[in-house]
Parts: sequence; C-alpha cells; structure tokens
Amino acid sequence: MAQVAVMNVDGSVNKIDRDSKESLDALRQLSALMLKAALQKEFAGIRLGADVAEEDGFYVDSDKDEQQVSADELSQLEAAIKAIAKSEAKVEFKELSVEEALASVKDDPFSTELINENAKDGKVAMYDLDGVLAVANAPVLVYVNLVKNYKLLSVAGAYWKGMSSNPMLQRIYGTVFYKKDDLEADLKARQEAKERDHRVIGNQLDLFFVDPKVGAGLPYWMPKGATIRRTIERYIIDKELADGYEHVYTPVLMNLDAYKTSGHWAHYREDMFPPMDMGDGEMLELRPMNCPSHIQVYKHHIRSYRELPLRIAELGMMHRYEKSGALSGLQRVREMTLNDGHTFVALEQIQDEFAKILKLIMDVYKDFDITDYTFRLSYRDPKNTEKYFANDEMWERSQSMLKAAMDSLGLDYYEAEGEAAFYGPKLDIQTKTALGNEETMSTIQLDFMLPEKFDLHYVGEDGKQHRPVMIHRGVVGTMERFVAYLTEIYKGAFPTWLSPEQVVIIPVSDEKHGAYADELAKKFKAAQIRAKVDHRNEKMGYKIREAQTQKVPYTLVVGEDEMANDSVSVRKYGEKDQNGMTVDAFMDEILHDIATYSRED
Amino acid sequence: MAQVAVMNVDGSVNKIDRDSKESLDALRQLSALMLKAALQKEFAGIRLGADVAEEDGFYVDSDKDEQQVSADELSQLEAAIKAIAKSEAKVEFKELSVEEALASVKDDPFSTELINENAKDGKVAMYDLDGVLAVANAPVLVYVNLVKNYKLLSVAGAYWKGMSSNPMLQRIYGTVFYKKDDLEADLKARQEAKERDHRVIGNQLDLFFVDPKVGAGLPYWMPKGATIRRTIERYIIDKELADGYEHVYTPVLMNLDAYKTSGHWAHYREDMFPPMDMGDGEMLELRPMNCPSHIQVYKHHIRSYRELPLRIAELGMMHRYEKSGALSGLQRVREMTLNDGHTFVALEQIQDEFAKILKLIMDVYKDFDITDYTFRLSYRDPKNTEKYFANDEMWERSQSMLKAAMDSLGLDYYEAEGEAAFYGPKLDIQTKTALGNEETMSTIQLDFMLPEKFDLHYVGEDGKQHRPVMIHRGVVGTMERFVAYLTEIYKGAFPTWLSPEQVVIIPVSDEKHGAYADELAKKFKAAQIRAKVDHRNEKMGYKIREAQTQKVPYTLVVGEDEMANDSVSVRKYGEKDQNGMTVDAFMDEILHDIATYSRED
Repeated sequence: MAQVAVMNVDGSVNKIDRDSKESLDALRQLSALMLKAALQKEFAGIRLGADVAEEDGFYVDSDKDEQQVSADELSQLEAAIKAIAKSEAKVEFKELSVEEALASVKDDPFSTELINENAKDGKVAMYDLDGVLAVANAPVLVYVNLVKNYKLLSVAGAYWKGMSSNPMLQRIYGTVFYKKDDLEADLKARQEAKERDHRVIGNQLDLFFVDPKVGAGLPYWMPKGATIRRTIERYIIDKELADGYEHVYTPVLMNLDAYKTSGHWAHYREDMFPPMDMGDGEMLELRPMNCPSHIQVYKHHIRSYRELPLRIAELGMMHRYEKSGALSGLQRVREMTLNDGHTFVALEQIQDEFAKILKLIMDVYKDFDITDYTFRLSYRDPKNTEKYFANDEMWERSQSMLKAAMDSLGLDYYEAEGEAAFYGPKLDIQTKTALGNEETMSTIQLDFMLPEKFDLHYVGEDGKQHRPVMIHRGVVGTMERFVAYLTEIYKGAFPTWLSPEQVVIIPVSDEKHGAYADELAKKFKAAQIRAKVDHRNEKMGYKIREAQTQKVPYTLVVGEDEMANDSVSVRKYGEKDQNGMTVDAFMDEILHDIATYSRED
Repeated sequence: MAQVAVMNVDGSVNKIDRDSKESLDALRQLSALMLKAALQKEFAGIRLGADVAEEDGFYVDSDKDEQQVSADELSQLEAAIKAIAKSEAKVEFKELSVEEALASVKDDPFSTELINENAKDGKVAMYDLDGVLAVANAPVLVYVNLVKNYKLLSVAGAYWKGMSSNPMLQRIYGTVFYKKDDLEADLKARQEAKERDHRVIGNQLDLFFVDPKVGAGLPYWMPKGATIRRTIERYIIDKELADGYEHVYTPVLMNLDAYKTSGHWAHYREDMFPPMDMGDGEMLELRPMNCPSHIQVYKHHIRSYRELPLRIAELGMMHRYEKSGALSGLQRVREMTLNDGHTFVALEQIQDEFAKILKLIMDVYKDFDITDYTFRLSYRDPKNTEKYFANDEMWERSQSMLKAAMDSLGLDYYEAEGEAAFYGPKLDIQTKTALGNEETMSTIQLDFMLPEKFDLHYVGEDGKQHRPVMIHRGVVGTMERFVAYLTEIYKGAFPTWLSPEQVVIIPVSDEKHGAYADELAKKFKAAQIRAKVDHRNEKMGYKIREAQTQKVPYTLVVGEDEMANDSVSVRKYGEKDQNGMTVDAFMDEILHDIATYSRED
C-alpha cells in the first residue's frame, strides 16, 4: 500500500497509509497551507485568517486591501498553487518564540491573534512553507508535489471567528484528492448538490430569503414559497383532523416556570432564547418545544378514559438558539413551525396508537412521493437501565409493543439499543438531504416522564386516577426543513398541487388573444387553479423559456386556433412537445393532477 | 333641582346637583365606604384594601382570615349596608397624625400601606363612618340614607396593587343608583352583557382559556375555538388572494435596529416587549407590528411601476406589552395574530386602491353579517399642519381622494379634522362590543413616512426612481379580538359555516341506530361537514338539550323510521320543531348554508 509522510503539530513526522482518512485530511491541510502561500505571493500585504481542513475539503480566510478576492482570481490562485507544487518546497517545522512569530506576520491582525491564541510558554509551533509561516494546528503532508488534483470552488464572506460584530473576511473554499477520478466524482456530486440546493433554488424561484441584518436564521417566505407552505399546512391539518386529531393554537410564550417543571431549563437551556422579564415577577420564555403547551390543554379539563387516545395537534411555532455559524437557509433556522402532535394514551393503547401514527406518516409520504427513508427503533440500553426513567414494566411492555407494531405492518427497521431518550423508546424515520446528510423527518417518541412531572391523570373505568403515557409525534417536521427537503428532492419542480404557479397562459398576440387568456385564467381561478397570464411585451419563445425556468407545471399557448376551438395548446414542464386539447379536457387533467398529488419526474 | 351634600378630601362640604356625574361618583364612593364598614362589622379582624368608585360602580378589596368571602355572604353584607343606611351614622372628616391613623387599623398591612402612602407632613386625611376609618381619596356623600338602591354583584380575585407577586385579595363589586329604575335598568344591561360576554360564552362552549400562571394575556385556543379561528383564517386568506394580495410569512422577531429606523422604538417602546440580547451584538425584538417586515419583502427586489399596487398580506403574529390589569379574555391580549396587509401604491393610485380595500371590507362584513358600524375619516388639523409629516401636496391630494372614494361608494361618514396620524390620513370603521365600548374593527391608513424612513423606491415609466405611498389596512383585525367580537354579536350561536360542530347526530337507541348514525357522520365528513355522533349512554332528551346548550346548528335524531327511509329528523338550533327530510335534502340544505355563510337569528 502506498504511504505518505505526515508532519504532526509537534513537528514529528511519520508515514501513514495513503488511502486512510487521516491521509486525506493531511492532504487537505497541506492544500490550505499552499493556498495561504499562494495568497501571500499573489496579493502582497494580504491579511490571513484560519486555514482549515474540513469534512469535505479545505478553506482559508483572508482580507485583501481595497477589493476583496474575486471569483475570477481563483484561477490565478490555482496557478500559483501549481507553481508551488512543482517547486522544491516542502513543509518544515519551526518552534518560534512568540516575538519571532509575531515579527514574521508583521501587521496582520488576524495572524497575530492566531499566534497569541496558540502560544504556550512563550513559544508557538509553526509550519513553514517556503517562507510562509502558519500556526501548526493539524497534521499536514510534508511533500507539496502530492497536491495535483485540486480545485478552488468558491469565495464567500465569513465573519472573523464567526461573530457578526467582527470584520467580514473572504473565505476561499477548495477540494483536493490524490486521484483525478476522485476529484471528478466530487465535482460532479457538488454540481448535482448545487442544482438541488434549496438555497440556490429558493433564490431562483423567489421562494424565501434570509437577511442576517434583520435577523440571523429568521426566514422571510416570499409569496411563492408561502403558497407552497400554506398548501402543505392545510393538507396536513386536514389529514390530521380526518385522523381524529384536535387542532389547537397555543401561545409561543410561556412562563419560564413551566420549562423548569419540564426540565428543559435545566437540560436544554443553551438551545433556548434568553428569557424576558415582564415586571410583575413574570419571566416569559419563547418556547423551544410545544409539549408543555399541549399539556396545558390536556390539564384544562378532568379527562376520562373515554377520551383516550386524546390527540392534540398544532402547527406550533418554536424558537431555538442555534449558533449563527450553524444557520443555513430553511434547513437550520432559529424560528420554526413544527407539525407537532401529542397523543395521550393508556399504557395498553400504545401499540394501536403507534401503528395508527405510523400509517398516517406512510400515507403522507406517499402523497409527497417520499420514497428514500429508513426506520430506526431506539430502545434503552439493557445493560444500563439505571440511566433511564425508572419503570421496568413500562419499558419492557412498550418496547415490545413498538416492535410488534412494526412487524405487523411488515416494515424493515434497524434496532438501536441504548439510543432511546431518557424518557422512553422511540422510532425515527431518517431521510437524506441533497448534500447527503442524514436527517430525521418523522418521529414517534413515547414519554413516561412528562406525565409524571406535570402530574397528569385520567379517570379510569374503575373511577380511579391513572397516569397516561404521552406520545410526541411529528409527521413532516418543521415547515422550514420540510420545504427545504422537498425543494431538494423535487429539484424545484414541485408537483402541480404544491406548485405556486400551476398554469401560465401565454397569448400568441396579447392584443388579439390577451382577452381570451384572461377569460381562461378567470375560469381556472374559479376552480381553485393557480393561473396567471403573461401579458408582457416579450417574445413568445422567451416567455415559454421563462415558464420552464420557473418550473411551472403547465404552460398554455393560446392563439387564433385555440380561440376558435375553445381549446389550449399545452406544454408540460420538462417536455418539448405541445399538445392541443379542449379547455374542459385540460381542466379535467390538471384537477386530477392536483387531487391525486401526482408528480411526474 | 335636588341637591346632595358632598364631602371633599380636604374635609370641606358643599352641595351639588343630585343628577350630576359628580354626585353619582360620590354616591358610589359612599357605598364603597359603607361596604368597608359592613365587612369590618361582619368579619372581625378582616384586612381591608382599596375602596374605589369606578365608571360603572364601586369595589372594595379585602382579605379575610381562613376562608375568603363567599358569593353567599354577599347578601349578608347587603343587609349590613342596609342597617348602616338606616342608622344615624354620617361621614365625618378627621385629620390624624400618622401614628393615630396606624393605631386605628392595628395589624392590617394593607390599610397600613394605604395610610403611609397618603401621609403628608406626618398627617393623613381620613373619613370616619361610625368608627370605621378609611383614607380620604375621593369626594363622598355625607348622608348614608341616600344609599338605598344598590346591589353587590360579584367577588373576584385581585392582586394587591395589581402585581402578581403580591398576595391575592378578594374584590367585591357593587352598583348603586339614586333611583330604583336606574338600578333595575343597570342590572338588566349587566345581565344582557353577561350573556354576550365572550369570556363567559368562551368558557361555556370551551373555545379558549387564559391562565395567568402560564402567561398573562396569552390565550390557549381549545379545539372548538381553534376550528372557528382556522375557518376565519382560511376564509380571509382566500378572499385576499382572490383580491390580488400576495400572502407571505415573515418572522415574529426582528433586529431592534429596524424598529429604531421605523421610529417605533423611540415612540412606542412602552408597548413593546423587552429586547433579547443574542450575543454576537444582535438584539432581537418581538415585533409589535408587521409593517417593517412587509417593507423587507418590498425591498427584497427592485420594484417597477408595473408591479404597483403591490399588495403584501399576512396573518402576522405580534406581541404588545399590555399592563396585566388591562388584559381581558381574547379582547385584550399580549400575543395576537393580525389580518394585516400593506399596499404599496403610486400617489395617483390612492383613490382606486382605497375604494378597492373598502369594497373588500364591506364584502367581508356582509359574509359575517356585521351590520352595526360607522365610518370615521380622519384628516390632519388644517390649523396645525406643522404637526404632521411635511408634504402639503400629498396631504391635500390624498385627503380629497379618500373623500371622493367614500362619496363615490355612497357611504355616510364622520369627518374628524385633526385626528389623522402623524404620517397620513385614515379611515376607521368603528363597531361596538357587548359592553358598549366602541372599538376599531377595520382601518385603512395612508403612510407617507415609512417609505421615506426605509428609503423605498419603484422605477417609474420614466425610468427614474419614485417614492411609493404605503397603505396599512386591516379587514377583520386580530383573530383574538375578532372572535371575541363575533362570539358577542352571535351570542355564541355561530352561523353554520363557522360552527365548530355543525351537526350532532343522536341515535334513538345506540344499539339499534348507532351504526346508521356513524354511516351518516362519515358521509357528512366526506363532504367537509363537521359532524359527530352522540353515542353516550344518556337519555335522548338530555342529549338534545346539550346540543342546544352547545349551540350546534343542526341536531339530527335517527331511529327506525329514519333508517327505513334514508332520512333524518332535523332540529335547527333555537327551534322547537323537528323536521323530517331525506339525507340528500338535508345535505343540500346544510351545504347551501355553509356556502352562503347564512345565519338565522
């Protein structure tokens, strides 16, 4: 097996397997170092920030005088890296006194800060690449000629140390591999991911935007994105109502005491927003989850066994404090609306209720054409039962009920011992994002603890008080994350029922056929079809192309013939042919499409 | 004219007209004093708080040992007041040293605090009624025999000084008049208001609740209230979409800087929630209004004159800090969702857009059967134009456009000079609550200022940048206040389309006809009719009465005959007769009811 020489942060060098993960990390670290050197050579006086090897590539932060690094200058930098790779240079280790190190970076405030942070006993370990010095922060390849198959990908702004109160630097991203094939596969996957990236599509289709200046992680849903969201919201509420849920609206604020009772304040505080002092001794908290709110609804009446399972649901807005660096489009946000529900059941009802929820989820997945998912059933660790809520009988019975339900539905699942929550076993349904990250789309979690903490009861058939079990469940998760996910799996080509614009009508001549087009649009709108007429003074070909770019499911062209025959010329999204049909036939087709949630790839 | 003797807080006595407002106030103050004396006589050792004459009666706060004052004890207190009224007692004035005053109230901590607060130069002015001393805080009648026509109304909890961190006292409310007829009219009006009070009906019908322990002014919408709200929300969104609005979702939080730019932070701060420090130098604020959010949506693109009028709408959740004492049911809350909209127009479009909005409002009023309202058109004060946003031409032109629009629609309106906002003229549509308070249901406000402050533009036909005018408009106001209002005007008997339960089906015998009832319910639900079957083991008469108490529009009874004939026996809410009809005929009737928003009184 091929081996490569790696230098460690203490200056020692050893050989490792070239195909190992450590070796790829060291190649990335070396590429970052070479990019730093290239920046310093190409742009004299540039200030340099972090050089980092990441999970999927590397980056370097910098701050150039006057203009920032432009996208065009990336090829200039690539050439400079190539020149270094061909030189005799190699990475050397130097332990400098802090004074020497600081002198080497002159007036660069960022490098100065990095050196001071990494100094130990007045000294600092550095890598020296052909006279360019950088703090030794991770293992790095020694020989520059191994950096052959690389690509600088993009430039983006990044606050120094991720703090918005700090100056904005430019972050240059790159990717690198030992083999050419690996690089090409990576670039292809990146291109594919970019085409699916909900942030890119969201911008192209004008679905939403986030502006950190008015609020980091707080998305604005533009009319088209809002239409998709509203359609999903109505769909899921109607689905749940038909399935026996009772929908409520509960406040986004709650007295902090409730989160002290629930235990969230003790264990979950760093994910919560700062409490607000209302005077009067009241501290209010933006809720990080909806369970305590639904518990209030449960507790508002004395409950009888006849009412169980009692299913409380809500599109519940919540707030979670995420670090600003972790925020991303609709995927990671600070304000979110969860398709949330809590079922209160008697212990013996768990299996049926669990199966019922699962059927609802499968049903919903079918309507959205979600096919790529796996089940993970999490139990407590049988060897460490003392780490969990103490009620052996409840755990044993409920775990076997969950398993029995999965088996009776004939579903494949992975059993994860020791991955249950403290408060009960759960089922997670995992999907993958366009970038390949696994995420939990749906969840069904049993909870033995909250009914205890909030002292919940129901009156049994025996007239006595009993403790219910609570089931937390989410079908499509938050509206934000779900729309991000759908955008990616559909590549922005939403099925007709979700499409913000379902029909665009293009008159051959606006003067002659515009009125007919308007008449059609009116007829469609009366049938709840989202239609618009493109009256603009542009060429027909341009309008058709734009409707395709906007991924409108149906583009209708109407001219003399269509007017004469009460017909339309229909072009479906992604198809090249136009298809003449009567207006009635078209309406039948699109209404059938909508009613059946149908989607063509 | 009859005159009465009134003692002032400085001890002076004068005579005033018995029919004056001051005289009624003094009568109420005397009644409060007599109630205090009665409390002290009936319940030895009771601690006494405030005695207050209010707009519509009087109250006294107290804190009894062991048990609190019960509703039953009110007649005991009424008798005690009667005894005082028949005695020789009259109010006397005493100026005591603080020491003497404090000695007179012994260990009563509330009276002690009142005395200390009202002390001046070591002395305190008090009224003495037959040995019972109270701080002189308002003019009072001298002669007790004038208190003849009074009634103690209710007992409720009230925090000492209105602070939830203080002990809870008991507040006894009463009403009093010189004439028996006036008292009777008042009691009748109170009864009427109580029957309409949305808090009372909301509780009876289980529509919502507020629990100050989990959050003052933060309502929980129970399933039935939520159904009403959801129906209204979908109705108004669909109405607005059809009227050319674009609906968005924008965050409830915004960077505080936006409210500094808008001027809200400078002028409206005391109605706003405390800002949250997010670290990173970011201060986030729960929005008190949605205008800055919709401005962000406007600014996200360069706008062209072709896009105007641009209509942005949202069911926007907002938070306003109201004092806890001012909170009331759904009427005055701290978290609310506004049927909000902002139209961006060119100056010359104001009249048409104003008329369009007004037509939308009238149309919506018709659907909700809202008939009791008045228009108030507010202009700037022509004598003090410098107090308003400075643009004479804009004011003159827009005011005359608003007036012309009202006239062209043939509407009666009241013109209020000097009642415009600083930023532009407006139209308010005023309705009355069950308690007779006037409130603004709908509003259309021009705003010249915010487009200036946020530097909004559109590109005109001339290719140059122009400043749009912003129109703030609300059709049905907040969901909270609107549902409170509807509950009151309908007295809880919501029209079929809004009713949370539209049909209750009662089988004559659950064993024999229960399955038929279930079949019907399924059929109704498939047609989007909210139906349930009352399967309980209760007498039929009881079930019918309960459906009436719950104000369900249609109660169906099904037995042998109905099963045999595929029919139902229909009883409409408020009617005594049952009416046999086929299932199809019934479905036609109720679906027509729903589709036409029809309401029968």
